[in-house]
This record gives sequence, structure tokens and C-alpha cells, in this order.
Amino acid sequence: MIACTPEPPYYAVIFTSLRSDVEQDYATTAERMLELAREQPGFLGVESARGADWLGITVSYWASEEAIRAWREQAEHRVAQLRGREEWYRAFRTRVALVEREHGMEDRSLSPFPAP
Amino acid sequence: MIACTPEPPYYAVIFTSLRSDVEQDYATTAERMLELAREQPGFLGVESARGADWLGITVSYWASEEAIRAWREQAEHRVAQLRGREEWYRAFRTRVALVEREHGMEDRSLSPFPAP
Repeated sequence: MIACTPEPPYYAVIFTSLRSDVEQDYATTAERMLELAREQPGFLGVESARGADWLGITVSYWASEEAIRAWREQAEHRVAQLRGREEWYRAFRTRVALVEREHGMEDRSLSPFPAP
Repeated sequence: MIACTPEPPYYAVIFTSLRSDVEQDYATTAERMLELAREQPGFLGVESARGADWLGITVSYWASEEAIRAWREQAEHRVAQLRGREEWYRAFRTRVALVEREHGMEDRSLSPFPAP
């Protein structure tokens, strides 16, 4: 789903990764990390997509730099990060960015409000 | 591929979209837009992934706000944006963000340089 974020400014963590062929524990850990992230203070939303070419992009949104730091240092997340480096990813890049503005188009068919 | 971007700061445009089921001209236009974007002044790179659930994330990287504005207003791109709203997307969100820092792990198997 497209994340429903508040008015900017807020932070985005853009995590782009190239998967290895190691499957063990990957899917369950990825699912668990999403569950854990949602419980963190300052978590605003997440979007994730992985194509057939093994390239994946996960963008998580956060209220503050402090929230990003706390999530990065969360104990269970640190273990997952280490396994990611050693097992699940051939390469990755993490970019921390301040979202300054946004616009878009809602899915009218799903909106609880009638179009104006 | 993971984009090879310069030292921050630079800008990211995070385009998250939910595709409609309209296929006509979508793939060729998407390809053409990537080709055009690469020719724009200030273009730094792009990453794109779309999963089986129709959610896609394309992150393009730019040297300045001015470069982003010029690309948004590029004539052929404007026509594509309009068709995107009317035909190819059920919903989308565009977020403009200033990348402040980054870190990562290179793909050692592809690196032209030996690991230290």
C-alpha cells in the first residue's frame, strides 16, 4: 500500500537492496522487522516493492532523526541487519532524507469520501 | 541496479504508485521516460521496483530542486504524467526529499576493486 503520511516535513529512509540467493529466514525476518518497525515511536509508514530482477526498494517514514536512530539500534533489528550483510543481500544502500513536500492522487475507488 | 550517487546532499524524488490494469503504451512510455530523464541536466540516477501486488516504487536522484522542476515541466514528460493520472495509475504519491546521508555495502563480486 501507499503510505498515508502526515504533512511534511518528516524523514524517509530509502533502503535499496540486491538480494542474494540465500532464502533461509529471510521472509519471516522481513515480516518480523515490519511488525517491529510499526511499534517504534515516530514510525509513520512504510512502502516496499521487489521486482523480478532481485532489486528491492523499501521506504520507511519517520517523524524525526531520533526515531530513525532508535530503530537502527533496536536490538532485534541489529541482529537482522548483521544477517542481512552476511547472508541476504549482495549489496544495499541506505539513504536518509528529509521529505520537504509531496503531492499525489488518491485511489478514488477506495476512498471513504465521495469525489468533490 | 542500485544507483551510484555522489556524496550527499542531493535530492530524491520518491514516486510510489499503484498501477491500473491499463497496459496500452505503459511499458514503452516508462522506458522512454527513463531514457529522457537520463538526458536531463542534474540527473544523478534512478532505482525502480514493482512487486506482484502492483505497488511500484521509483526513486530518482537529482542535483538540485531546479533540476527536478525542469524535469517535471519537460514537455514529453508532462504528456506522460497526464496519461499516468488518467490511464496507468489508480493512485500515486510523489515525495521530494533532501538526502542528508547514506551508507551501504557494495556488491563485492561486481566491484572492479579488490576488497581491502
